[in-house]
Amino acid sequence: MARIQAIIGLIKDCNVEKLENIELMEEAIEKAGKLMDLTLLETVSHKFSPSGLTAVALLAESHIAVHTYPEDNSIFVEVMSCGRGDAKKVLELMENMLDGKAEIVLDKIIGGE
Amino acid sequence: MARIQAIIGLIKDCNVEKLENIELMEEAIEKAGKLMDLTLLETVSHKFSPSGLTAVALLAESHIAVHTYPEDNSIFVEVMSCGRGDAKKVLELMENMLDGKAEIVLDKIIGGE
Repeated sequence: MARIQAIIGLIKDCNVEKLENIELMEEAIEKAGKLMDLTLLETVSHKFSPSGLTAVALLAESHIAVHTYPEDNSIFVEVMSCGRGDAKKVLELMENMLDGKAEIVLDKIIGGE
Repeated sequence: MARIQAIIGLIKDCNVEKLENIELMEEAIEKAGKLMDLTLLETVSHKFSPSGLTAVALLAESHIAVHTYPEDNSIFVEVMSCGRGDAKKVLELMENMLDGKAEIVLDKIIGGE
């Protein structure tokens, strides 16, 4: 099967207002897709009450997911990609867009036989 | 932040016709959500030409994603869940629905401080 790069990161100390901004988050996912040269098929998102949001983009090369925790100024970011680029770049992009500091929780290659 | 159980599995030796059946895959995701007592917000899916499909369900408690590789009789299954149940049950459910054999690639708790 395909070789999938699995990256999961927690980005801490983010700007809280940005973590609540669903348009910004969709823009971040779109930019992440372009940065990695991935094909976005569809993005779905949901804003929770009173706070937090979640968004997942379906890619031709797997998916990108974000879940925000404004109460902790943090966001969970996951990139599963069969593309060629290094998915860790997405964490750098999100760090910059959300004024936070990323910690890599998982960096693993799955499949590829 | 929340405690997330991250489960990634590869299910091999699946029934190929089932791996191409998008309705069955959406049904499997729905059953997985019920089994784990999770709240499905929205499911998006895409059928590739000539073969394979991908589907992601956005949950109130994170997400479930599947990507099929009919050429290898296999499927990538991922469950990220803040729920209480053991997400490995989803792999058992999918094994049974797809007549395959699951191999756990990742079983990790993220966050939870």
